[in-house]
Amino acid sequence: MGKGMVLGTMIHGAGERRTDWRHPAIPSDASTSFDFYKKQALISERGKLDFVFVADAMYITPQSAPHYLNRFEPLTILSALAAVTSNIGLVATLSSTYSEPYAAARQLASLDMLSGGRAGWNAVTSGLGGTALNFGHRRDMHPEHGIRYRMAAEFTEVVRKLWDSWEDDAFIRDKDSGVFFDPKKMHEAEHDGEFFSVKGALNIARSPQGQPVIFQAGKSEDGRRFATDTAEVVFAIDGEIGAAREYYMDMKKRAARTGRNPDELLVIQGISPVVADTEEEAFRIREELTATVSLEEALADLGRHFDHHDFTQYEPDAPFPDLDGLGANGFRSDIERIIKGARRDGLTLREAAMREAAPKTPFIGTPEHVAGRLEEWYRTGAADGFMLIANLPSLLESFVEGVVPLLRERGLFREVYEGTTLRDHLGLPFRENRYARAGEAILV
Amino acid sequence: MGKGMVLGTMIHGAGERRTDWRHPAIPSDASTSFDFYKKQALISERGKLDFVFVADAMYITPQSAPHYLNRFEPLTILSALAAVTSNIGLVATLSSTYSEPYAAARQLASLDMLSGGRAGWNAVTSGLGGTALNFGHRRDMHPEHGIRYRMAAEFTEVVRKLWDSWEDDAFIRDKDSGVFFDPKKMHEAEHDGEFFSVKGALNIARSPQGQPVIFQAGKSEDGRRFATDTAEVVFAIDGEIGAAREYYMDMKKRAARTGRNPDELLVIQGISPVVADTEEEAFRIREELTATVSLEEALADLGRHFDHHDFTQYEPDAPFPDLDGLGANGFRSDIERIIKGARRDGLTLREAAMREAAPKTPFIGTPEHVAGRLEEWYRTGAADGFMLIANLPSLLESFVEGVVPLLRERGLFREVYEGTTLRDHLGLPFRENRYARAGEAILV
Ligand SMILES: Cc1cc2nc3c(=O)[nH]c(=O)nc-3n(C[C@H](O)[C@H](O)[C@H](O)COP(=O)(O)O)c2cc1C
Ligand SMILES: Cc1cc2nc3c(=O)[nH]c(=O)nc-3n(C[C@H](O)[C@H](O)[C@H](O)COP(=O)(O)O)c2cc1C
Repeated sequence: MGKGMVLGTMIHGAGERRTDWRHPAIPSDASTSFDFYKKQALISERGKLDFVFVADAMYITPQSAPHYLNRFEPLTILSALAAVTSNIGLVATLSSTYSEPYAAARQLASLDMLSGGRAGWNAVTSGLGGTALNFGHRRDMHPEHGIRYRMAAEFTEVVRKLWDSWEDDAFIRDKDSGVFFDPKKMHEAEHDGEFFSVKGALNIARSPQGQPVIFQAGKSEDGRRFATDTAEVVFAIDGEIGAAREYYMDMKKRAARTGRNPDELLVIQGISPVVADTEEEAFRIREELTATVSLEEALADLGRHFDHHDFTQYEPDAPFPDLDGLGANGFRSDIERIIKGARRDGLTLREAAMREAAPKTPFIGTPEHVAGRLEEWYRTGAADGFMLIANLPSLLESFVEGVVPLLRERGLFREVYEGTTLRDHLGLPFRENRYARAGEAILV
Repeated sequence: MGKGMVLGTMIHGAGERRTDWRHPAIPSDASTSFDFYKKQALISERGKLDFVFVADAMYITPQSAPHYLNRFEPLTILSALAAVTSNIGLVATLSSTYSEPYAAARQLASLDMLSGGRAGWNAVTSGLGGTALNFGHRRDMHPEHGIRYRMAAEFTEVVRKLWDSWEDDAFIRDKDSGVFFDPKKMHEAEHDGEFFSVKGALNIARSPQGQPVIFQAGKSEDGRRFATDTAEVVFAIDGEIGAAREYYMDMKKRAARTGRNPDELLVIQGISPVVADTEEEAFRIREELTATVSLEEALADLGRHFDHHDFTQYEPDAPFPDLDGLGANGFRSDIERIIKGARRDGLTLREAAMREAAPKTPFIGTPEHVAGRLEEWYRTGAADGFMLIANLPSLLESFVEGVVPLLRERGLFREVYEGTTLRDHLGLPFRENRYARAGEAILV
């Protein structure tokens, strides 16, 4: 369980759900307001949280939810946040399906360097098939789900090789002798694989944490395998403790099976806490948040999971339609969850869509109540920590001010930052340079 | 001549030339020091300069100069600088040969948005053939010079289309009615060209300056054509007033010939000013800067222009070798300048290499002298402005403190920032959205 509970914040601009932006407390231009992002990051840093996270996708249609239409690109906004924060980790989403490993490795390393070792990378494979249309003449078709994960495995392998281009003591910089670096400590990747061929070396050195921390959120069989083989932190949103425990156990077992220390694969649950002084007030806040969702909007959101399938063609009050494998090349595990839930509970299309649209969270109530739930999840093997996906900025503040001090009292969360890097915060080891290790082995 | 003289700063880390890092006044880790970059940006902003610029390349070998081996990536470092500055423009180099238009458009737009309209893009085609080795399975060979410029033309066209995805009043954000945007004001690029196929729309809106400013530095015939067709600012380093005037005249004529307003294609000369209280002191500083260059280093630098050609194979004291078109697919115009100069002046290889290595500048001496030279260049049609490529951080400071006030006295340079965007500073017009214009035309 590392160094105590992990806590992060997802900063997502104008509300997390389709209609959140209509809430009076959300600046409706939040998704492109630097001040808004900065404020969320500073609140999180004041709470000594481990990281802030920025999600990403690269395809929109007129039906996309407002917060997808117009928002910052993760590496640029997180670099800007690096300059106005001093401790908190900065986790950027970047797609292995639609990026170049050399360019990705550099930008992540550059963020890591300029932040003093605070970068993390959420490696995603891009569920939206339309993304291929924005990257035509490169990948003319959206690669199939399994192929995307094979690409992801190779992509991260190359990126990590590139990140080790320079051993930590490669740069000598002796002004008198004129020796700038030790050529024996510069390493070209010389990668030639199924999808990528990259010579190296990368033109930037390693940061104080060695390498950025790799995050992942695959939920399918392929996704889990990739995550356990590669990632150091995994995200999930399971919504209830039973499913979370199952996922937790599965990921830790898989880690152990691949010979890894399970403590070095952290499992983080994304949660949407609603904290208020009284339970009634908390439920009132949630009520307010659901009030604005129309059926049309709920169907559009549902459709996005199924690769922008148009659900308005079905009778909303008939049973959830039989989709016959549709969208299986998209966000596969989300689709399975939605269909399974609808079948199990005998939902109509309307009910399934509205269920998806409502903010579902067991973390609702007073600070004491929410701290208790978090402790329960944490102590009983449901999660190593949590990422706050707050629907309202005020909910992030009430969490940091109300719940975090209680977690401290219970000995679950840090009082101050004890280290300077994201790895320090997460209790993950410095990532040794692969070539330095090889060198030492020869000496032994 | 727009709004007076344009002044920018190139921030390049550990010295501009191969051996500058050995100078006692340069922090030898400057190229990856955020504090160093921040300091240069703040000095420049204190002087009310128009912009800071970060160069880029994506291929290194053990022979590369120190400041190429280990440095920040432009978009990340400039995003960080955006957060700690408030007025100065931020110009990032990004290659049209080795990037994706959708990703490039987004990151540049994101920098533009988070800085409040201060972004510029130096569109380069990547002269180093080895770059292809870092982007294998995408472009397996480095495209030929002319093809790179054809790609660049299409690339910038797509990027600009994407930047116009949203008309400036597309986002309505009416909380009461729930109308977030006007679908008629969202435009897909629907681009399908020779090299790229990109659907759009881009998932970020335009900034207060409409679009980032496009910079370019092509010097060859193809390069100049691309620059006049596309760019709003061109960079050159001509070193002496005669060549600068020729270039200036040529670019302005070309602009006029393509039907553009020549005042909206700014010509900026890169200069390395050496300013000190006395002339003697200035020359002493330059002397100090050359002292550390060895023949070996000068040859390696020379070789980089010729696509990493190995010049150590020739007798250094024989006439400059006949290279028979070698490297013409690299930085073509640099090569032509070097060879032409060597032939004209009957130089040996050693002399040609050392000439290239020495900081050559007519802008050396007292503040009065340097201000006078700048005024001469500016008033007699050699440049619309200058980019400072200071070898030492102290030389940037002495320029800003010594020369800039004199330029103000002469009415050549602003006292305060009069606008907030890079376009405002440069006197370039807000870039109208192409679709908005079309709409207005129909109404008339
Ligand atoms: C907390 C969390 C954050 C995620 N962030 C992103 C993201 O930014 N971009 C993205 O394309 N997918 C994101 N995903 C989706 C996952 O990467 C993954 O595609 C999805 O869970 C489906 O699993 P599968 O790929 O194994 O089918 C996120 C998932 C979770 C749980
Ligand atoms: C001030 C200045 C800055 C430049 N910055 C870059 C750069 O960052 N990256 C790059 O690849 N080339 C850069 N160049 C090179 C030009 O883009 C161009 O390739 C070169 O001048 C050769 O001209 P040509 O491409 O027309 O042959 C720069 C040139 C100048 C004058």
